[in-house]
Amino acid sequence: MKTILIVGIGAGNPEHITIQAINALNRADVLFIPDKGASKADLADLRREIIARYVTNPASRTLGYAVPRRDASNPDYGAGVDDWHAALAERFAGLLSEVPDNGACAFLVWGDPGLYDSTIRIVERLRQTHPVSVEIMPGITSVQALTAAHGIALNRIGEPVQITTGRKLGTVADDTIVMLDGQTAFTEADPDLEIFWGAYLGTPDEITISGRLGDVASQIVETRQTARARHGWMMDTYLLRKRD
Amino acid sequence: MKTILIVGIGAGNPEHITIQAINALNRADVLFIPDKGASKADLADLRREIIARYVTNPASRTLGYAVPRRDASNPDYGAGVDDWHAALAERFAGLLSEVPDNGACAFLVWGDPGLYDSTIRIVERLRQTHPVSVEIMPGITSVQALTAAHGIALNRIGEPVQITTGRKLGTVADDTIVMLDGQTAFTEADPDLEIFWGAYLGTPDEITISGRLGDVASQIVETRQTARARHGWMMDTYLLRKRD
Repeated sequence: MKTILIVGIGAGNPEHITIQAINALNRADVLFIPDKGASKADLADLRREIIARYVTNPASRTLGYAVPRRDASNPDYGAGVDDWHAALAERFAGLLSEVPDNGACAFLVWGDPGLYDSTIRIVERLRQTHPVSVEIMPGITSVQALTAAHGIALNRIGEPVQITTGRKLGTVADDTIVMLDGQTAFTEADPDLEIFWGAYLGTPDEITISGRLGDVASQIVETRQTARARHGWMMDTYLLRKRD
Repeated sequence: MKTILIVGIGAGNPEHITIQAINALNRADVLFIPDKGASKADLADLRREIIARYVTNPASRTLGYAVPRRDASNPDYGAGVDDWHAALAERFAGLLSEVPDNGACAFLVWGDPGLYDSTIRIVERLRQTHPVSVEIMPGITSVQALTAAHGIALNRIGEPVQITTGRKLGTVADDTIVMLDGQTAFTEADPDLEIFWGAYLGTPDEITISGRLGDVASQIVETRQTARARHGWMMDTYLLRKRD
């Protein structure tokens, strides 16, 4: 049986990687690097930097693969994601043929494989037709990089925290982390909330802004636009909380 | 100015530590190890193991300190925590005198310093009287260790996740992570929920149980009791979700 290692590599800083993840990468015969196109070349480069720094196994090789695009025009979000996962599972099956019998391969996943990442689900789908052993290595998420960068605790004493997406952001009752917000949903939220925002967290390009939402929302919108134009991509995360 | 490094060391597996955290520990002149009494000696031992494995700076030294107990009998939870933080800030001020001028010290925090941990708040309080520089290093949390151990994603596709405490667990609408639940609040939840439970996550003593809550709740309660009696302490976490 072949083994698939789903390895969390942290939120952008190559030093976010854990010893466990480094050991996993060194067990792999093949390391898979997704290619999401020129605009996200920075992200592929960061994966390659991690491999160059930490993989010392001379027998391993790195293999890039093209990632099919999700059909964002599908009005049924769930169905669009399902089709995309099916296409990726087929791609993964092809990649698996590059792995020697009883060998191991690794997928390097930004952040933690459990949080807003598709790899676990795609591999689950792959397993329905290709029996493989799967191991998951946790990684530092942008949530943790965000609160560390702002020097704050995620939760208030004994209080809950909500993690959600821009698409699902409604009225903010509890402290709320928002991820995957390409639509700047925070501009519609209560201006009296406090926001702790961060982009490119953990990288040398890290940007953080915090303050009363009504005072800093337009600054964040402009900063996002400028930075996205410069980098070709934008990954940001933020915490919204009621002010004391 | 002295520097306080608040270093997340992961959820129990010494290999959960990040390269960033290892580098931070090696910058410290003094490494502080809390002593929470004989029943939690395992936890202090794990911190000492991490120092023994990864700290190569010959100039650093390790210093244990007694942790004052929180008055759990105070009916006002917030006031009880506040008194406890005040006592700890005073203790930290004493520890700071052990750090050379312009030197650095490190607190080793289980999991991530931002999630249900008091160190950031206590150091904030300390800063009101002792100007210090503070840096936070994120760490793998038991939430990430839990989902990795069960081989599952934390969130459903595009859906939110709630992180809360046993004390605050009410009706479960979204997928919910429960931490700090000494009262086994899951026994009061809808028996048709699915639970993914784990204790001593990441350690050789890791235990995981999953299934329909009504079918496995009593098994989890018994497992907790037996394991707590054997180890003298119990740290567990679980995810509750509606079944498909």
